[in-house]
Amino acid sequence: MYLKKYSEMMLPVIEGELKRQVARLDEAHTRPFHEMLTYHMGWTGEGAGPEASGKRLRPLMVLLVAAGYQSSKWLCASPAAAAVELVHNFSLVHDDIQDNSDKRRGRTTVWKKWDAAQAINVGDALFVMSNQAIMDLARDYPAETVVRAASVIHNACLDLTRGQYLDMTYEKRNDLSIEDYWKMIEGKTAALISACTQIGAILGGADESAIEGYRVFGRGLGLAFQVQDDILGIWGDEALTGKSTASDLVDGKNSLPILYGISQKGKFAQRWSASAIRPEEAAKVAQTLVNEGAREFSEREAERLTNQALGVLEKINPKNEAGAAMTELAEQLLHRKA
Amino acid sequence: MYLKKYSEMMLPVIEGELKRQVARLDEAHTRPFHEMLTYHMGWTGEGAGPEASGKRLRPLMVLLVAAGYQSSKWLCASPAAAAVELVHNFSLVHDDIQDNSDKRRGRTTVWKKWDAAQAINVGDALFVMSNQAIMDLARDYPAETVVRAASVIHNACLDLTRGQYLDMTYEKRNDLSIEDYWKMIEGKTAALISACTQIGAILGGADESAIEGYRVFGRGLGLAFQVQDDILGIWGDEALTGKSTASDLVDGKNSLPILYGISQKGKFAQRWSASAIRPEEAAKVAQTLVNEGAREFSEREAERLTNQALGVLEKINPKNEAGAAMTELAEQLLHRKA
Repeated sequence: MYLKKYSEMMLPVIEGELKRQVARLDEAHTRPFHEMLTYHMGWTGEGAGPEASGKRLRPLMVLLVAAGYQSSKWLCASPAAAAVELVHNFSLVHDDIQDNSDKRRGRTTVWKKWDAAQAINVGDALFVMSNQAIMDLARDYPAETVVRAASVIHNACLDLTRGQYLDMTYEKRNDLSIEDYWKMIEGKTAALISACTQIGAILGGADESAIEGYRVFGRGLGLAFQVQDDILGIWGDEALTGKSTASDLVDGKNSLPILYGISQKGKFAQRWSASAIRPEEAAKVAQTLVNEGAREFSEREAERLTNQALGVLEKINPKNEAGAAMTELAEQLLHRKA
Repeated sequence: MYLKKYSEMMLPVIEGELKRQVARLDEAHTRPFHEMLTYHMGWTGEGAGPEASGKRLRPLMVLLVAAGYQSSKWLCASPAAAAVELVHNFSLVHDDIQDNSDKRRGRTTVWKKWDAAQAINVGDALFVMSNQAIMDLARDYPAETVVRAASVIHNACLDLTRGQYLDMTYEKRNDLSIEDYWKMIEGKTAALISACTQIGAILGGADESAIEGYRVFGRGLGLAFQVQDDILGIWGDEALTGKSTASDLVDGKNSLPILYGISQKGKFAQRWSASAIRPEEAAKVAQTLVNEGAREFSEREAERLTNQALGVLEKINPKNEAGAAMTELAEQLLHRKA
């Protein structure tokens, strides 16, 4: 119940800070360029609105953790909140080109709407703005803190490119192990979420052991979040997720249930290696995966990572409203249906 | 003559620092990814060597300006030197995808050798590393200085994306003016070179008026450099530039001589608007441009910008060996034949 209160307070601040950062390109001679960015952020164009913007989970985590330590000063951390969301969005714009994806949050992707060349540049600009946003912390924090927060985010970004590299390489391999999976999502999902909670702690003024705790918590949360995403990508409720059920099977995604299924060398593995799964047989193949234990295995992994992450949070989380809201958010993410 | 001495001293340091930064990806499970970056940097693969690396002009500028103030401390500035070169190379990798270019410094481009998806990620990784390199300045400089240097480079990067946007948009227009040209190269070329000289001054410990002077000098140098490039792109000596003569005409590039020619509404403009220039008629079209005053106009502009830049440098440049070397470098760039 505190999460609702804090979300309602923080989300408009996050959106305002994001708009301020992106407005750097709002000049007469680059206006159409600015519009490509505001379109992607979900603010303009057909279908604009909260649905098109996404949930802004990462910036919310930065602010909730920061607010747990200094309830009055979380506003000062908003440039860092904007920075992590800009990084996330830069990676989405490039990812959509790399994956040849037509749709993002229910709308036409930037590269489909304009072209790949412009979309590469849109992603680059979002990335630059995340750098600029981080530097804006210098208004309210000592330069040492800015450098530290920036370093955390830069390291997470390098992990992102590592994860992206692995993801693209894995597409051409059929000998992947569960171990390979963890390495990939460590970079693609966990690194940035870990940076969010860690930066929140740094800006909140937490002590070193708590900062380290938030790094570990964020990493676990990120891993669990991705596993949960993978489960929903095969057995999720289409009406809730907005994606067609079993789309990960049809897309041939290297998700945890699929890699587990391959490792079992049973009926699923046979079908998988034969040819691409057609939409009309996806439900049947998903059932084969259930029969061979892939769903149970994935749910157990999600549960294990969730309990680990919540255990760390329990120890370090401040016992106040913002702390409670952060716990609520983590629990919600890990038990979500969409 | 001082330039030779300083180049021989600084270039190996620059190369070493670049290799150290890029080595962040040199791990067992991302080794092929690391190789894409070292290939692009000119260190590995067929045709590796100094020719494939480029001239490292931008990092040299950072170090020369810094050395002009504190001759003993320029080594400390080497992470910033690496950072600007990494930014430059990130933009080249993405530019080659955007321009559909097969060759860069005489070798197959990254996206041609691997694919566009991997090349987007290679560019992103180089960009991340430039951010990390800048943060490495914290080893030898106060955090305030790191934040300031980082902000200068981030602002230049946003200008880069602006210039890139204009360049891509201009390709579809046939009503471009000389004014449009200056806006584009301001972002595409001048912003980063201006950041180089400015950061050199900041790290050297120059006073505020000298830092501002170096910003203005670098901008002028960058503009003159680009105009010179445009002149060589049509009338350069093929044997020296390594590009086929008149290639800018065949490629339909929005270069200064071409835009001037269009503005004259004479024979060149007629031919230009009719259809793409074929290689075999390039020499004749280049002569038409000369006849209509495009070469003279461009050379006068290069001269004007050169004199302006050198005039600024003359006033602020330290009267020591490194200062003399910086002047030499500027003069060489502005009167180069390749």
